[in-house]
Amino acid sequence: MSGIAIHKFTTAHPGDVSALKSLPESTKPEDLLAVIGKTEGNGCVNDFTRMLSSTVWDPHLEASGGISVFSGGTEGVLSPHVSLVVKEDDYLNEDGSKMYNEGLVAKVGGTRDFEPWEMGTAIQAKVTADTIKKLISEVEVEPDDVHMVLVKCPLLTTAKVVASAKECVTTDTYKSMGYSRLATAVGIALALGEVTEDGIDDALESYGQRGWSSRASCSSGAELENCHIVILASSKKASNPYRAVHGYMADAIDLNVLLELTSKIPRGAKRVQIFVKAEPSTDGVVRGKRHTMMTDSDIQGTRHARAAVGGLVAGVWGETDVYVSGGAEGQGPMGGGSVCVVYKV
Amino acid sequence: MSGIAIHKFTTAHPGDVSALKSLPESTKPEDLLAVIGKTEGNGCVNDFTRMLSSTVWDPHLEASGGISVFSGGTEGVLSPHVSLVVKEDDYLNEDGSKMYNEGLVAKVGGTRDFEPWEMGTAIQAKVTADTIKKLISEVEVEPDDVHMVLVKCPLLTTAKVVASAKECVTTDTYKSMGYSRLATAVGIALALGEVTEDGIDDALESYGQRGWSSRASCSSGAELENCHIVILASSKKASNPYRAVHGYMADAIDLNVLLELTSKIPRGAKRVQIFVKAEPSTDGVVRGKRHTMMTDSDIQGTRHARAAVGGLVAGVWGETDVYVSGGAEGQGPMGGGSVCVVYKV
Amino acid sequence: MSGIAIHKFTTAHPGDVSALKSLPESTKPEDLLAVIGKTEGNGCVNDFTRMLSSTVWDPHLEASGGISVFSGGTEGVLSPHVSLVVKEDDYLNEDGSKMYNEGLVAKVGGTRDFEPWEMGTAIQAKVTADTIKKLISEVEVEPDDVHMVLVKCPLLTTAKVVASAKECVTTDTYKSMGYSRLATAVGIALALGEVTEDGIDDALESYGQRGWSSRASCSSGAELENCHIVILASSKKASNPYRAVHGYMADAIDLNVLLELTSKIPRGAKRVQIFVKAEPSTDGVVRGKRHTMMTDSDIQGTRHARAAVGGLVAGVWGETDVYVSGGAEGQGPMGGGSVCVVYKV
Amino acid sequence: MSGIAIHKFTTAHPGDVSALKSLPESTKPEDLLAVIGKTEGNGCVNDFTRMLSSTVWDPHLEASGGISVFSGGTEGVLSPHVSLVVKEDDYLNEDGSKMYNEGLVAKVGGTRDFEPWEMGTAIQAKVTADTIKKLISEVEVEPDDVHMVLVKCPLLTTAKVVASAKECVTTDTYKSMGYSRLATAVGIALALGEVTEDGIDDALESYGQRGWSSRASCSSGAELENCHIVILASSKKASNPYRAVHGYMADAIDLNVLLELTSKIPRGAKRVQIFVKAEPSTDGVVRGKRHTMMTDSDIQGTRHARAAVGGLVAGVWGETDVYVSGGAEGQGPMGGGSVCVVYKV
Repeated sequence: MSGIAIHKFTTAHPGDVSALKSLPESTKPEDLLAVIGKTEGNGCVNDFTRMLSSTVWDPHLEASGGISVFSGGTEGVLSPHVSLVVKEDDYLNEDGSKMYNEGLVAKVGGTRDFEPWEMGTAIQAKVTADTIKKLISEVEVEPDDVHMVLVKCPLLTTAKVVASAKECVTTDTYKSMGYSRLATAVGIALALGEVTEDGIDDALESYGQRGWSSRASCSSGAELENCHIVILASSKKASNPYRAVHGYMADAIDLNVLLELTSKIPRGAKRVQIFVKAEPSTDGVVRGKRHTMMTDSDIQGTRHARAAVGGLVAGVWGETDVYVSGGAEGQGPMGGGSVCVVYKV
Repeated sequence: MSGIAIHKFTTAHPGDVSALKSLPESTKPEDLLAVIGKTEGNGCVNDFTRMLSSTVWDPHLEASGGISVFSGGTEGVLSPHVSLVVKEDDYLNEDGSKMYNEGLVAKVGGTRDFEPWEMGTAIQAKVTADTIKKLISEVEVEPDDVHMVLVKCPLLTTAKVVASAKECVTTDTYKSMGYSRLATAVGIALALGEVTEDGIDDALESYGQRGWSSRASCSSGAELENCHIVILASSKKASNPYRAVHGYMADAIDLNVLLELTSKIPRGAKRVQIFVKAEPSTDGVVRGKRHTMMTDSDIQGTRHARAAVGGLVAGVWGETDVYVSGGAEGQGPMGGGSVCVVYKV
Repeated sequence: MSGIAIHKFTTAHPGDVSALKSLPESTKPEDLLAVIGKTEGNGCVNDFTRMLSSTVWDPHLEASGGISVFSGGTEGVLSPHVSLVVKEDDYLNEDGSKMYNEGLVAKVGGTRDFEPWEMGTAIQAKVTADTIKKLISEVEVEPDDVHMVLVKCPLLTTAKVVASAKECVTTDTYKSMGYSRLATAVGIALALGEVTEDGIDDALESYGQRGWSSRASCSSGAELENCHIVILASSKKASNPYRAVHGYMADAIDLNVLLELTSKIPRGAKRVQIFVKAEPSTDGVVRGKRHTMMTDSDIQGTRHARAAVGGLVAGVWGETDVYVSGGAEGQGPMGGGSVCVVYKV
Repeated sequence: MSGIAIHKFTTAHPGDVSALKSLPESTKPEDLLAVIGKTEGNGCVNDFTRMLSSTVWDPHLEASGGISVFSGGTEGVLSPHVSLVVKEDDYLNEDGSKMYNEGLVAKVGGTRDFEPWEMGTAIQAKVTADTIKKLISEVEVEPDDVHMVLVKCPLLTTAKVVASAKECVTTDTYKSMGYSRLATAVGIALALGEVTEDGIDDALESYGQRGWSSRASCSSGAELENCHIVILASSKKASNPYRAVHGYMADAIDLNVLLELTSKIPRGAKRVQIFVKAEPSTDGVVRGKRHTMMTDSDIQGTRHARAAVGGLVAGVWGETDVYVSGGAEGQGPMGGGSVCVVYKV
């Protein structure tokens, strides 16, 4: 069981680790469980800002065995930032009793590396699900206590496709990002009991329309070959002031659910971070009206979606260093996306 | 005095004039005052979707002497559409008395063509102001009755810069779009009494920070050499159910003003259209946090701003065929933009 | 049999038809067989410069029953232009005998419209082949006399995919451009006897690697639903000074073949135009070294290829208004592309 | 005096330092003078591939006090790679006499950091010139012996402009790259005696048209605040088989000068590397015909130029890992660019 705190800092560029200096003095190197960041690349295949960020951050995660998850793309008003998830001792009263009767806990881990031909398939889904189940049991919570499973997953490059021993799910490098996110999300849904093992193929074939999780947040990148996993959950065994609620946007302009979820933050509580997934709806419309996100050959659809949903989320949240990640296959209903709100009472 | 109706239709592509067939049968060709559209180009220098739209629409505006204003860029969730402003007779009761004691009126017109070296200068501002003043007087309203002055203004291409008899305000074609919008907005502010003639130079030099209008909505394009002007105003002399309110976003995530303005729409009234200007703040931050809109060499800043503000506006409005236009120099405070809401009681 | 002349003019923008005024005075409206142009769009799905050009040019092609083929994309040094193919009477000596014992002839035509689910399939290939065979027989030449079959073919938009009665070859709008070019090229190869009817499926499945034509030049666009075809051939029955040679680039930096083909132009002859197809090699390398054209999520691969091959071709040709078109599936070997050189003795 | 060898290797991604393992075994860490690389970013303001490459390479340059110069942008066929400049002892015959009576030498160094308001000004030019003069004298050659001065120079970001104590040369971050390259190039020209100190202002004001160097190769980036300098020269005091020739392309399609310079490589000699600068001509034409590089708001002009000139250079050189860098202000005539060919006899 790992009680945690979450500290958020803006970054000056993708190579900026100055956030480390802003952590509470009591934080030790072995406490740094995860770095969850938004970097200012295109969020697509050739986004090397993620690689730069993981190159400079990963040495600082060695002591803790922690992981980094960088999601590229700060289109529109979004502000590059990092959220540092750090272990924190239970809050105790002077008499040694627990100050709170619940708290937020986190667990991080990684799957094995995937072969190119496994990416985007049921194999990736199952291996990811197994790892998540193990992590959930280690952190001593139930699947229902989980608010968000945030995963950084791999993608296919031209070099990997050409070198692959078996046929890959696609030869299109940009599309491989979506397939990898989808397989990961289906794995999360399996681990959380939202789809059954029998339903995996159908979930994959329907591109997440028949099998998804509102607690999945997946982002793919060329900078890794396995899945990096962060699990956020509520625990009655912990004692800290961090709380979370989750839900999902039904479409890309679902202001209501955002207002509803944020209204659950008690008056006086401090907003910590909001994690949202976004995507262009694959039927080409939002509430019946044509969008141009998928016929734009200059800007990828995920970039459009991040920019638009980012504008809406930042408007609701009142600040721009929110975590909005593009490509929501299986992470909420088609055209919508998962939402997780973290606050501090 | 021209009482009007506004009809909005989505378009299938920039060459689509099928909206004409959806107008009320009573509409005659000479009633079509203006076509105000969003097209799916990049909204920048080489956005030929605007030229395509004006090529196919302008023949339909000849009978009325009407004008077209196409604003390029439907980034994010924005949906390409046209708003047709048509003359409509006063609504009368059976006894011939006026059904309403007010109504929305419109007036359209154009300035003379501008020389390349005039674009973006005080000359453009003054000529535009003179034309607007004349149009306002012709439509028999006061400057305070005006809700929005929507203008399509020219830009500089490399060919124009090279051919210019005198030095131009810039040699950068993308930047010329901003200067032209700025000069136009300052002209609007002058016509509406928001800046004085003495203040023009200061307004231009401060890039609109010291001299702007919350009722200006300017968009520049390569498809014209003069300014196309549409004025929307309330008039006690008209009798129709169209109403408007206006205001401005203080920054790019100003959700509050959008909620406030839309809350003025009476219960039961029909939302007609919302017109919003958006821009990347030139100080590089939104509410103190860095944005990347102006250091992104892949996507122009106005595209980012349209996508983000478009997402927010569409969320509030509940539909995606809203008019969000990029580049708000002098059209609201720095980083924010003008807002005009039209509804039908 | 239609002896022809080819006149080339640069354009100021995609809506520019001023070239019409520069044609020889003797040219009648019914002589204008084809307009083959390069426009300055992105050459991809949302390239509306092609639609703008066909909108302004097509009325001028009605008298002749002629066709337009606009290929988007003038990346790098390429200069937007049009090549006008006009019928021209045989050149005769004063005694009425033929001045030349050969000449260039052309024939234009179109297939029927294709359903969304036919695009990119063997159906499109066969229908196109049938039309080409008919056109070749009508112009009274043999397949071996043909130097180039230039075709504008349709693509899939999100709207078409969603509306399709049957499953389409892809749901990815950008990819549909490649499939449509491929099916067209295989149709050309079939018509010219370069693949057999039995080989069509293999040619399509191998993405043109086992079945291609060095005389195919295909370009896809959203502005049409059928194939527009222009055939250029040598004929002993004609008498005019236009000549052509053809070949193919083996890869994207094949300077040698360009020097070799242009060296066939006799001293003193006038260069008329060079038509070249270009593409990113799908194995991700050029002469064994990695390229980044297919992992770049900011710029589509065909844009990269046009820019690079355009630079090379313009260097060899000595002028920049050359016809370099992107996407060479089945139009030359993988990674290379067809080349056709036209000159005037 | 530092006799050198140059070894070229392709890279798998911008974080790839595997080239180190491919160096001759005799190479010691303190021999690595310079890493001159092309990375696959956009080559513009937000190109963090350069920062990633310098982050991973710079630790390997500490022992030698060497420098890295990464030029972003491998548009078109260009292949990401690094050229490692390593110190090498004189080649001697068995009797201890020199094997060659000349050889290639190199010297590297850096200027002081520049303030934001100094960038792109005469101050930057003069400081750079002073450093170059010092380096030339240290390597014991004359200015006429120099074949290339390759410099990585800083640029302005929005943050720097906002924080600057004095007004900067521009507020446009992309434009600042050009001004910085220009000032650097003028500094090189001053150091090499191609402009006089009196001519600096005129060279800057004319944007390099009246004052340029065909031996300058400058590239700007956000990853440094000073200038990194590499000087390549011929020396009679050295004894090694490396040779160089230099010249300049008069425009972006100047195939002739490339053929001429490469024809100077003796039969049997090995091509080592070609260094070329490229830019869109600011008058908007190439040999009288309009280009669209500067009116394209989707792709920056330097990207277009690199792609096109890269295609031409790769065609001539016969391989794609050539060094073509965009933005040739003051580095060759307007629209053209410097060329340096290195080979090994």
